[in-house]
Amino acid sequence: MNIAFIGLGNMGAPMARNLLKAGHTLHVFDLNQDVLAELAQLGGHVSASPKNAAAQGELVITMLPAAAHVRSVYLGEEGVLAGIRAGTPAVDCSTIDPQTARDIAAAASRQGVDLADAPVSGGTGGAQAGTLTFMVGASAQLFGQLQPVLAQMGRNIVHCGEVGTGQIAKICNNLLLGISMVGVSEAMALGNALGIDTQVLAGIINSSTGRCWSSDTYNPWPGVVETAPSSRGYSGGFGADLMLKDLGLATEAAKQARQPVILGAVAQQLYQAMSLRGDGGLDFSAIIKAYRN
Amino acid sequence: MNIAFIGLGNMGAPMARNLLKAGHTLHVFDLNQDVLAELAQLGGHVSASPKNAAAQGELVITMLPAAAHVRSVYLGEEGVLAGIRAGTPAVDCSTIDPQTARDIAAAASRQGVDLADAPVSGGTGGAQAGTLTFMVGASAQLFGQLQPVLAQMGRNIVHCGEVGTGQIAKICNNLLLGISMVGVSEAMALGNALGIDTQVLAGIINSSTGRCWSSDTYNPWPGVVETAPSSRGYSGGFGADLMLKDLGLATEAAKQARQPVILGAVAQQLYQAMSLRGDGGLDFSAIIKAYRN
Amino acid sequence: MNIAFIGLGNMGAPMARNLLKAGHTLHVFDLNQDVLAELAQLGGHVSASPKNAAAQGELVITMLPAAAHVRSVYLGEEGVLAGIRAGTPAVDCSTIDPQTARDIAAAASRQGVDLADAPVSGGTGGAQAGTLTFMVGASAQLFGQLQPVLAQMGRNIVHCGEVGTGQIAKICNNLLLGISMVGVSEAMALGNALGIDTQVLAGIINSSTGRCWSSDTYNPWPGVVETAPSSRGYSGGFGADLMLKDLGLATEAAKQARQPVILGAVAQQLYQAMSLRGDGGLDFSAIIKAYRN
Amino acid sequence: MNIAFIGLGNMGAPMARNLLKAGHTLHVFDLNQDVLAELAQLGGHVSASPKNAAAQGELVITMLPAAAHVRSVYLGEEGVLAGIRAGTPAVDCSTIDPQTARDIAAAASRQGVDLADAPVSGGTGGAQAGTLTFMVGASAQLFGQLQPVLAQMGRNIVHCGEVGTGQIAKICNNLLLGISMVGVSEAMALGNALGIDTQVLAGIINSSTGRCWSSDTYNPWPGVVETAPSSRGYSGGFGADLMLKDLGLATEAAKQARQPVILGAVAQQLYQAMSLRGDGGLDFSAIIKAYRN
Repeated sequence: MNIAFIGLGNMGAPMARNLLKAGHTLHVFDLNQDVLAELAQLGGHVSASPKNAAAQGELVITMLPAAAHVRSVYLGEEGVLAGIRAGTPAVDCSTIDPQTARDIAAAASRQGVDLADAPVSGGTGGAQAGTLTFMVGASAQLFGQLQPVLAQMGRNIVHCGEVGTGQIAKICNNLLLGISMVGVSEAMALGNALGIDTQVLAGIINSSTGRCWSSDTYNPWPGVVETAPSSRGYSGGFGADLMLKDLGLATEAAKQARQPVILGAVAQQLYQAMSLRGDGGLDFSAIIKAYRN
Repeated sequence: MNIAFIGLGNMGAPMARNLLKAGHTLHVFDLNQDVLAELAQLGGHVSASPKNAAAQGELVITMLPAAAHVRSVYLGEEGVLAGIRAGTPAVDCSTIDPQTARDIAAAASRQGVDLADAPVSGGTGGAQAGTLTFMVGASAQLFGQLQPVLAQMGRNIVHCGEVGTGQIAKICNNLLLGISMVGVSEAMALGNALGIDTQVLAGIINSSTGRCWSSDTYNPWPGVVETAPSSRGYSGGFGADLMLKDLGLATEAAKQARQPVILGAVAQQLYQAMSLRGDGGLDFSAIIKAYRN
Repeated sequence: MNIAFIGLGNMGAPMARNLLKAGHTLHVFDLNQDVLAELAQLGGHVSASPKNAAAQGELVITMLPAAAHVRSVYLGEEGVLAGIRAGTPAVDCSTIDPQTARDIAAAASRQGVDLADAPVSGGTGGAQAGTLTFMVGASAQLFGQLQPVLAQMGRNIVHCGEVGTGQIAKICNNLLLGISMVGVSEAMALGNALGIDTQVLAGIINSSTGRCWSSDTYNPWPGVVETAPSSRGYSGGFGADLMLKDLGLATEAAKQARQPVILGAVAQQLYQAMSLRGDGGLDFSAIIKAYRN
Repeated sequence: MNIAFIGLGNMGAPMARNLLKAGHTLHVFDLNQDVLAELAQLGGHVSASPKNAAAQGELVITMLPAAAHVRSVYLGEEGVLAGIRAGTPAVDCSTIDPQTARDIAAAASRQGVDLADAPVSGGTGGAQAGTLTFMVGASAQLFGQLQPVLAQMGRNIVHCGEVGTGQIAKICNNLLLGISMVGVSEAMALGNALGIDTQVLAGIINSSTGRCWSSDTYNPWPGVVETAPSSRGYSGGFGADLMLKDLGLATEAAKQARQPVILGAVAQQLYQAMSLRGDGGLDFSAIIKAYRN
């Protein structure tokens, strides 16, 4: 299939490579010339603009850092909607606010283009291994079209509802994830301060009502889970500044929906304070450092 | 075995009944004459005081509402330590602060009595069914003595470390549980306000990084988990005022350990506000009502 | 002086009336025909668009509900910048985020227009009485030009620094105001619950280190300050939903500046929860209702 | 007058010296022999126990670090109540929880002793200069007896109501003070990050609705108030660990009264985190360091 792929950063580039491996023809665009050169060597066709790439795709995929980029890549003069043919499906894999996703889908729809939002989880590791989870907001028909292609980049392709619900699912999950990680950090640090063995404490929590992914799979206390970033100096994993971005999206969406998110707002501020202390590049489980001296 | 059992409330009475069923001889004490009469009918021997009960037991078990009661039942003039023989093992199943547990164990130790703390989880349902979890703080030897008897009242008998660690394990787990439940409530209510189907959202969270007991087993959104209190009007389950008590124990222990617990303190206050609104008798998952109109 | 006045809502209309009273010629625009008719009766000239109004003014004043309106009123096809002559001073009295204020000033500057931001405090009462406070972000020269005209609508005309600093001053003050009001509410409700007379407590606080405007001038406990909204059922005053808007601006600006505001974020969420309960139309001191049963 | 004075720490010693200067005969007790020797040199009579001191006083004054000390000094075998004559007035100037104050007053009352609580504000500087504020919980008659003596150690002698209300007034004021100081810190740090001059910002706040003691008298931004601890490296003043203690008393009293204090609980945790970072010995306005890098 001819696929236009726009946005070749830490996530987009390995995703595009997986599509090349699967035998697709890729028309790629990015502002970074180095990554374009690299994709060209792997067989990709370099386009001069999102518009040009979109004009040649039977499917358009975008993977961009934030809403402002998505807006300009789709709606700009040299953007996707200026080049895409009516009837061509498109999917934006960026993590952005649900309202922008819906606004751009509405703009696409006015020219006969069905646009899905499909943010991912799984990080750069998942992008390379092709094991990402895609949370897809799309009509049933569009989901059916996208599913086989997304499955070449990921393992779980989840249909969340109409366009925008992919973003909603992601920010709600990550809102809870951020809260849980701070909660596990407080529980582990408190247990340690009170004198229980942290390995024992984690074992009890993990077989009790406190159990959660942040405790049983990604425990922030070093040594509890050998494969977790906490056991290798909080390197790799999901950066604290990315968690901060997602908590910002969640609280902003909550503000627009006039919905309170009290612990979520506190968690966001705690990650902001962590970033201010210079630790935004560490894995997000390093928030536990705020609870230890 | 001759067992002194002191404290026959909503939890203690069914626990005592399970021990009677298992064939033990019980010497029981409580301030409530009705429950004493009921236990007597089942074959229990009514004692005039904790002292008298303890004098006749080869093992002493206590199950009391709060630290003040534990103090007076053990240390009072007519208390356990006034009657118990040196060498008799004892176990307090109340949920109290770790420091009081340690203080009373130290007092017991001075007269040759080895005292364990073993708070439970599982609620009145678990007490009746004999499926409680016991989190036991005790020497290895004492744990070995207690284990067979506790197993007649519960399913999981977990050794947490020295005396006091049972309480630590419980309050750390419940600190995290309280935070998680508020977190799930915020995520579910936000998702609903933004327009995703709550059943779909819960499914995504439960197979993703937000998964936790409060979401997959005890989801606060009605209808998501059919067996959860949220699906029956928030009746039964674990009362919000009990969660408030446990969060109070956790933040108090944190204060004494000079350890911050930021989200835990906010969760405590949210449960306090819920109690002020008159909802303290509902299941603790009803905290989600603060997020819906 | 010929003044273009755009935005005649609850604040703008009485401000415009004060300028008419002071003898200026006003060229007015609003989407609401009724208020235009009313201003016309008072001698105002109705313009067909912001562009037309601006074309006829020696000074342009705008007073709009939010950043989106300011953007479109200045930058739209029929907007101020399409009609204004180079060299004409302009001042936006709306309360918006500092970045938008700076962006629009930059756009104005590119066509030779010096634009100030001058958000106000004092409410509709102050607008009618001409006793508003203006927090002005402008060059020293522009401030000098604006000062005499602003003084016909307000009592305190404060120069905060370059453009944008008016907005910064307002959101920082109101961030603190929101926090203080919640703090006073907690202190008064706690004192009452513990058994001190609230009048006595307020007196002590007001002569001690807890003293603040929210306690000595605007105390949320009914009867403590006879002129405060709390003494008349929380009617009138500064609406809770307006405080919520300002806290939203503050936390959003903080996010962009990567600056934590922990209590501010919690205060915002508490006002959001108040709004969800249906009390957003009450004076913002009614937040104390969350602390009383 | 013969006065028993028990507790000669950083606050008690200078208070006792002021009473000696005023011509009273003092019977002093403390565990610290050095300070006893010093007071003896100034003419004080050293007693062997609180009991002995109390036996010789026409008035008993105590000034102790925490509730546990107050309990033992009054109720211990060698305590005040073991020596005091019925009818002798007594006043405890310690800052403790209101319930303990009331409990001890009730015990005193049973033997004919009228006990007041009278916690102070003003710090060691105020103790030395004799300019303390006393917040007095006492019957009107007892207040009348105490007032002249307290006035020899302080400037403001405020009658708050019956016994216990002195403590209530102090913890409610300091709850608000802690919240205000964090609020001012967030507002000043945010303003600075957004680009307004901090001196200008403080000026605007201080003449607007955000004004409070923490901003106009004790501003945490260095250089804004020349006499504030922030302008001398956060030395001197009111230590962060003392604020932490008072916030702990407030949240504990709130818990017992089943009263939520949401911002108060967060402020307590922020001071706990500050203490964990090793800054508990700085003035409490140094909380602003958490908001700056």
